[in-house]
Amino acid sequence: MMIENYIRDIQDFPKKGILFKDITPLLNDPKAREECLKLLVTDLKVEKIDVVVGAESRGFFFGMLIAQELNAGFVPIRKPNKLPAETISASYALEYGTDSLEIHTDAIKKGDRVLIHDDVLATGGTAKAMCELVESLGGEIVQVNFLMEIEFLRGRDKMKDYPVFSVLKY
Amino acid sequence: MMIENYIRDIQDFPKKGILFKDITPLLNDPKAREECLKLLVTDLKVEKIDVVVGAESRGFFFGMLIAQELNAGFVPIRKPNKLPAETISASYALEYGTDSLEIHTDAIKKGDRVLIHDDVLATGGTAKAMCELVESLGGEIVQVNFLMEIEFLRGRDKMKDYPVFSVLKY
Repeated sequence: MMIENYIRDIQDFPKKGILFKDITPLLNDPKAREECLKLLVTDLKVEKIDVVVGAESRGFFFGMLIAQELNAGFVPIRKPNKLPAETISASYALEYGTDSLEIHTDAIKKGDRVLIHDDVLATGGTAKAMCELVESLGGEIVQVNFLMEIEFLRGRDKMKDYPVFSVLKY
Repeated sequence: MMIENYIRDIQDFPKKGILFKDITPLLNDPKAREECLKLLVTDLKVEKIDVVVGAESRGFFFGMLIAQELNAGFVPIRKPNKLPAETISASYALEYGTDSLEIHTDAIKKGDRVLIHDDVLATGGTAKAMCELVESLGGEIVQVNFLMEIEFLRGRDKMKDYPVFSVLKY
């Protein structure tokens, strides 16, 4: 089984000129999803992970499965004003302007060993902001973990301080 | 262990006068999360479920775990313009105005046995819209399944055509 077969290309989404990688067929096939999960946790079985952090909202899908597989907590990082309790936020650059992400301040304890997960590593802006949030709360980043990496966007260049893993490279 | 202890009340979120039930502590505790998952699938172990459908975005958390536990597909139902391929949509009433939800047209096949999951059953508007979407695509709804039910909002009244299950009642 090739996981790639369960990720489909959608032209011009969310806007013209963008080739979107749609993971919904992968979510909807239990066998392919299981195989993908195994690959996502390959290097993590020997690590103690306290918390898996996933980004809104496509990072929630495999983030939850990884947390369950590793018997770790799961912490969502969300867009502004979605998390109800006390938060800290980090900004990141968009093509035009900036956006920001939030995490609950009590979600990670000092010294927690953290796995950061998202579906795609593109320019790395989101991932970098996630790392900042986790480190602000005293978490130790064990790995930054993606389903896919869009290599020509060079997101890995922003992540030199951390071990980066991706299942698929485009 | 009482699952209730992992759901915290947040006053005045998302707006004044609302008491929000925050499930993030439950997501972040592997033992409580596992116990909650067991309760969510209690009546489903003897059923054949082809697809679990979860609503954006808090329905993604346990929706994914249930799908994994039951070896079923997972299909996200999302806010407008978030799903990249061909969709159908259903509207539901808000306090003022309406909102709508979308599902990929190829996500469910005619005759698929479907479990619908969301975190909270409140007025039932979202849940009803989810049921409409699934039935439009020919899915058979086996159960509509929630972490919590806010009983005084009487969402169950809208769901009389379906078996409804909730782990916690408030």
